[in-house]
Amino acid sequence: MPSDIAPVTHQLILMPSGLRGPVEHGMDVLHAARTLGVELESICGGRQTCGKCQVVVEEGRFPKHAIASSSASLSPIAAVEAEYCTEHGIVGRRLACAAQVVGDVLITVPEESQARKQIIAKAATERSVVLHPAVRQVYVEVELAGLEDRRSDWQRVAAALESQWQVHNPVPDVRVLPGLQAALRTGEPGVMVSLWRDSEVLRVDAGYRDSAYGLAVDIGSTTVVAHLCDLRTGAILGTQAMMNPQVRYGEDLMSRVSYGMMEPQGVARLHRAAIQAVNELAERVAAAAGLSSEDILDAVIVGNSVMHHLFLGIDPVELGGAPFALAVDTPLDLKARDLGLRLHPAARVHVLPCIAGHVGADHVAVLLAEAPHTRDELALVIDVGTNAEISLADRERILCASSPTGPAFEGAQISHGQRAAAGAIERVRVDPESGEPRYKVLGHEAWIEADTVGPLPEPARATGICGSGIVEVVAELFLAGILDSDGRFNEAAAGRNPRVRFPTRAGEYVLAEAGLTATEAPIIVTQNDVRAIQLAKAALYAGTKLLMAHRGVDHVDRIALAGAFGSYLSPRHAMILGMIPDCDLERVTAVGNAAGDGARLALLSTDLRDEAAHIQTLAEHVQIATDASFQDEFVAAMAFPNARDAFPHLVAVLPKRGAPLARRSQRRRPVNAGPSR
Amino acid sequence: MPSDIAPVTHQLILMPSGLRGPVEHGMDVLHAARTLGVELESICGGRQTCGKCQVVVEEGRFPKHAIASSSASLSPIAAVEAEYCTEHGIVGRRLACAAQVVGDVLITVPEESQARKQIIAKAATERSVVLHPAVRQVYVEVELAGLEDRRSDWQRVAAALESQWQVHNPVPDVRVLPGLQAALRTGEPGVMVSLWRDSEVLRVDAGYRDSAYGLAVDIGSTTVVAHLCDLRTGAILGTQAMMNPQVRYGEDLMSRVSYGMMEPQGVARLHRAAIQAVNELAERVAAAAGLSSEDILDAVIVGNSVMHHLFLGIDPVELGGAPFALAVDTPLDLKARDLGLRLHPAARVHVLPCIAGHVGADHVAVLLAEAPHTRDELALVIDVGTNAEISLADRERILCASSPTGPAFEGAQISHGQRAAAGAIERVRVDPESGEPRYKVLGHEAWIEADTVGPLPEPARATGICGSGIVEVVAELFLAGILDSDGRFNEAAAGRNPRVRFPTRAGEYVLAEAGLTATEAPIIVTQNDVRAIQLAKAALYAGTKLLMAHRGVDHVDRIALAGAFGSYLSPRHAMILGMIPDCDLERVTAVGNAAGDGARLALLSTDLRDEAAHIQTLAEHVQIATDASFQDEFVAAMAFPNARDAFPHLVAVLPKRGAPLARRSQRRRPVNAGPSR
Repeated sequence: MPSDIAPVTHQLILMPSGLRGPVEHGMDVLHAARTLGVELESICGGRQTCGKCQVVVEEGRFPKHAIASSSASLSPIAAVEAEYCTEHGIVGRRLACAAQVVGDVLITVPEESQARKQIIAKAATERSVVLHPAVRQVYVEVELAGLEDRRSDWQRVAAALESQWQVHNPVPDVRVLPGLQAALRTGEPGVMVSLWRDSEVLRVDAGYRDSAYGLAVDIGSTTVVAHLCDLRTGAILGTQAMMNPQVRYGEDLMSRVSYGMMEPQGVARLHRAAIQAVNELAERVAAAAGLSSEDILDAVIVGNSVMHHLFLGIDPVELGGAPFALAVDTPLDLKARDLGLRLHPAARVHVLPCIAGHVGADHVAVLLAEAPHTRDELALVIDVGTNAEISLADRERILCASSPTGPAFEGAQISHGQRAAAGAIERVRVDPESGEPRYKVLGHEAWIEADTVGPLPEPARATGICGSGIVEVVAELFLAGILDSDGRFNEAAAGRNPRVRFPTRAGEYVLAEAGLTATEAPIIVTQNDVRAIQLAKAALYAGTKLLMAHRGVDHVDRIALAGAFGSYLSPRHAMILGMIPDCDLERVTAVGNAAGDGARLALLSTDLRDEAAHIQTLAEHVQIATDASFQDEFVAAMAFPNARDAFPHLVAVLPKRGAPLARRSQRRRPVNAGPSR
Repeated sequence: MPSDIAPVTHQLILMPSGLRGPVEHGMDVLHAARTLGVELESICGGRQTCGKCQVVVEEGRFPKHAIASSSASLSPIAAVEAEYCTEHGIVGRRLACAAQVVGDVLITVPEESQARKQIIAKAATERSVVLHPAVRQVYVEVELAGLEDRRSDWQRVAAALESQWQVHNPVPDVRVLPGLQAALRTGEPGVMVSLWRDSEVLRVDAGYRDSAYGLAVDIGSTTVVAHLCDLRTGAILGTQAMMNPQVRYGEDLMSRVSYGMMEPQGVARLHRAAIQAVNELAERVAAAAGLSSEDILDAVIVGNSVMHHLFLGIDPVELGGAPFALAVDTPLDLKARDLGLRLHPAARVHVLPCIAGHVGADHVAVLLAEAPHTRDELALVIDVGTNAEISLADRERILCASSPTGPAFEGAQISHGQRAAAGAIERVRVDPESGEPRYKVLGHEAWIEADTVGPLPEPARATGICGSGIVEVVAELFLAGILDSDGRFNEAAAGRNPRVRFPTRAGEYVLAEAGLTATEAPIIVTQNDVRAIQLAKAALYAGTKLLMAHRGVDHVDRIALAGAFGSYLSPRHAMILGMIPDCDLERVTAVGNAAGDGARLALLSTDLRDEAAHIQTLAEHVQIATDASFQDEFVAAMAFPNARDAFPHLVAVLPKRGAPLARRSQRRRPVNAGPSR
C-alpha cells in the first residue's frame, strides 16, 4: 500500500542464503541483513573498525530475482571505510556497517562474514556445527564518568552492553572489577568486553582486542589431550598431548581408585596431578600459538568417570564397587580458578555430563561427535580402554553399557605387551601356508620379514607388541590354523613351523627372533596372551550382544571405533577374532579421538552443550554386571568364530587360498562354543 | 455443599494470626496451617525430629469463633512424638507435623514456631524484620544408590530437594561435591542441606545438624565491627570489633588512597589488610560462640566507598579526585573464597551497593537500618567520619550528599585531640559565670572539677580530647562568652579567668592543668582547634542546608546521628555550635553503629537486600563540590549561630542565667555571618 508517507524501500537479496525482502532506503547493510534474518559477524558494533562484516555486491541483472544490482545500489564509500579498506588491502568488498542500501541490490555474504558460521568439526564423521560459543566478545563505547553522573563505571559498561548489544543485566566476575577503571581510561574510544553466555563479564580490555580462545580437554587414563581453539572462527590453533601424570600413582583406573583409598592424601594428589596436566597443556598449546594460557577464557573438560571425579577433587571410591554410584553426573558450569586451573583469572569451565558409573563424560563427548542419535541408521559406538564403553544408538534410542575388557587391548597383561609407542609391533601378517610372519614397527615405515637376517636399523628393532599388534597376530594365527577356534595352539602346526613351540603343555609363537629386537630377546606370543585377548574380546562382544538383545536387533548398520586403540585397530582382524559383531567392513570406521572432538564441539557451541545434556538424559544404561545373560554371552564369545556362519560380511575379505581356515570351518563346532548362534 | 463424596472437614483457627478455614480430616497441622497461609518452622520436613513446629491446643468453647476446641480435636500422641517430647521435656505442646486434625480446633502458634519470625532488629530505631535469610537449611531423606538407578548421588539429592522442599534445579557449589557421597553414606537416614537463595547448595551434612550462621561486617576506616548471627533465629551470637589494620598504611582515607597510588603493592596490601581483618573477626566471634569460622555460610559487608573498593581489591584512586567515579556500585553476590575470606569453603558474601563516590555501602546500610524512606516524617540521617554522609529522606524522596568535614570531629588536627579511647576527655561543662570547667574522662565514671588538686587516680588522668569533647568544650566556651560568635577568643574574658590566655595574638583555654593529666602537660584548646571545629561544622551544616534547599524545606522532623562520633555527640552542643539545623532536641537521636545494624538486617533478610538495592536506585545524589551555593553556605556557617533566631528549639534548654550569651545575642551580627538567616 504505497502512500505519500510510506518510506522508500529497496529489495535486498542475500546470498548464499537467498533470503530477500524490502529494506528501508538508507539503512546500512548490517542492520538490513539482520531484519531479513541474516546475522553478519560484527565485533565493533558498526564502527567500521573490525572489518568482520565484509560483503560483496553482485553486479548485473538477475532476471530470476527480478532485480538489477550494481555498486551504485549502495551509498558511496566514505573516508572512514576507504581508509580501513586501504589499510587492510580490502578490494571489491564493502563493510556492511558502512554501506547503506540506496537501490535494489544482490549481495553475497562470504562465509567468514556470517555470524553463526557453519564449521566442519572433524575429519572422521564430519559433523557440521553452527558456531555459538559460550564466550563472545563485543566492542562497546562507554560514556565517560562525570560529576553529574553518579553511576559507577561498571553501571556505564552494563548500560552500554544493554543499548549497544541488547545484553540484559550482566554481572561482573569479581576479577573484572580491579582493572575496570584503568581499561576505561586509556584514551581509547571503547573497550572490548568478553561475555560468558551473555550474562557474565569475564574480561574488559581497553580498545579493540579480538582475542577469545578456548581449550577442549580429554583427560584419558593414559593420555591427556588439549585443543586450543579460536572461539570466533572455530579454528583449531593447536593440539598438545601428554602422558597423564596420575600414571605414577597407578597404571590403570582401578589402581588409582585404590591409591585414593589407601593413601591419606591420595585423592588430593590425583586431583592435583589432573589439574597440573591441564595447566601444563594449556601453557604449551598457548605458547605454541604465540599466546598465553591467560588468554584462554573458556574450557570444556571430558574424561571417563574416574578422571571426571578426580578432576573435580571427588574420591572415586564409589566407582570401584557396586552400585558404582557417581557423585555427580549433571553438566557443570564452574570457574577455572575454583579448580586451580591457571587460565584467565575469570575463565569458565564446562564439564560434560556422565551417563553412569562406568560410562563417563568422554563417552558423552564421543556420542556428541559421532551423533548417532541424529540418524536413522543403527550405530554401534565403541570406545575401548580398560573398560569398553559401548553405545547402540539411532534417532530412536541410545543404549549404553560398559564392559570389563580389562587392559589387554592396551598391551597390559601381555608377555611382551607395551603401549602404542615407538618400537611397538603394531601390524602383523602370518602367511597361512608357511606360518611365517611379517610385521610393522611403530616409527619405521617398511614391513619387516621375520626371516630377515640382522642387523636391522635402530627404529626397526621391535621392543614389544601393542594392542593392535596383539589383536592382529592372534587373528592371523587363527587364520593360519596355528590357533584353534578355542584359542589353543595347534600341536600339528608345531610340526609344520618351528616358530610354534610347546616348551610346556602350553604352546607359544615366536613373532620376532632375538636378532631382530631391541632387547635382543625374542618377542613371543604365549598361550596366556591369547587367553587374555580372548577374555577381553569376549567381554566386548558380549556387551555389544547384550545391547543388541535389549534393543531387539541382530545386526547394526555401522560401527565406530573411538579412541587410540580404535584408531590403530584393523576392523577386519577385530571381526576375525569376534570382537565386534558382523557388519559391512566398509562401515566399520576408526574415528580417532572422538572424545576430544566432542569436547571441542561443546567448546564451540552451547547448543551442543545442551545436546550433550540431552544425550545424558536420553541414554538408557544397561547394567551389565547384573544382567543374567551376560555371563552366558561372555562364555559363548570366548572362542574364535566361524566366519562363514556368524560373519557373512567377513567372508569376502578373507584369504581364499587358506586351507587351514577352510579345514577348521568344516569341523563341527559345539553348540554355544562361540558367538555364532 | 456437603455430599456423600465431599471429604469431611474441620475448622482450624490459628492464633495469633486469626487465620481460619476448613481443613481435611486427618491432615497434619503443619500442612493444614500451610493451606491457610501460615508457614510453621520445620527443618526436618515433618519427620518429628526437629521439634521446630510445636503448637499449643487451646481448650474450651470459643463463642466468638463459633467452635469448641480440645486436645481430642487432634489425633492422639503416638510413640515417635511421645518419645521426642519426653526426651526434650516438651509438655502441653504438640508437634504440628505429627498431630492430625480430627475435629474443630483452635491452635496457638508460639512465636518460635512461626517460620518467618518477626524480629526486632535493634534498640535505637526499632525496625522489625521478617526473617528471610539467603541461606537456609533443610533436612532431606535421599534415596539410596542402587544398581538399577544410574542417577548420581547429586541427582538424588536434587530430586529429594524438589520433592520434599519444592526447590527447583539447585546447583551444587563445586566444594560440595567432594564430600557429598560420604555424607550420604554414614548410615544416618538423611542429610541437612544448606541452600543459598534456594538455588545453590553450599553444604551437605550427614544427619540432622541445625547450624546456619552468618556474619555482618562494617568495615570502617578506623574500626571494623562484625556481628555473628544465627540465621535461623536472627539472634546475635556475638559482636567483635578491631582497629582496621589498614591504619598502618595511612591514618585517614585519603592517605590510604595515596598509599595505593604511590606504592607498587599498595592496593594489594590494603586489600589483604581488609580481608585479614574480616578473617580475624570471623575467627574471634565464632570462637567466642563456641563455633568455627567454617560454620559461617553467609556474610554481608558494608563500608564507605574506599573501604568497599579496597575490600574488593579495587584501587580507590578514582575516588580521590573528581569526578569521584566508583568502579562498581551495584550490589554484589560473591563467593567468600574469591576474596580470600576464610569462612565455610562454599560461603557466600553479599556486598551492599554504594550510592556515589563518597556515599558508600555503609550509608546505604544506615538508611536500611533507619528506614527514613518508609515514613512520612522528614529525617536527616547523618554519619560523621572524615566525610559526613548526609541523607534527607522521607517516603517521597531520598537526597544524599557527602560533605568534606575533615577529621577534626575524630580528634585529628586538634592540638590535644585523640581518638575516643580511655583517657580522652569526652564531656565538658564550662561555668558561664566563672569560666571554670569540669569534664569527664572516658574510662572513669565521675566528673572531674578542674580545680581539683591532684593526684587523680590513674584512669581519671586525661590524655587528650576526643571528638565529642572538643565539640562540647567549644560550645561551652561560646556559651560562657569566652569565644565570640566568629570563633575568636574574647580578650575581655581573658581578664576574668586566667585559663583564658593570649600567649600570642591568638587566644587559648587551659582545659586541664598539668597536674591533672597523664602526660603532665596541660590540655589546651587553641584558636586553631576552634577554627578546625568551625570548618568541620560549617561543612556539615552547609551540606544539610544544601539538601534542604534542594528539597525546598526549611526544617526537618528528626535527626539521626549515626556512627561512633554520633553516638557520643551531645545533640544540644551540636546545635549550639550550629552543626545541625534546628530540630526538637528530643527528636535528635544517636543511633549507634547503624551501618553495622543495616548489614545485619541485610544478612537476615534478602527482602532487605532488595530494599537496599532499591534505596541505591531511589537515592538522588547532590554533588556538593559543584554546587555554586555550597561555598556561600559554607562561609555563612563558619560563625556560631544566634540561638534565639536560628534555633528556636534550643532556647528552652539553654542556661537561663547566663549573662554572656544574653549579652552577645543582643549584639548585632553582620548579615551572612552565620547560618541564622
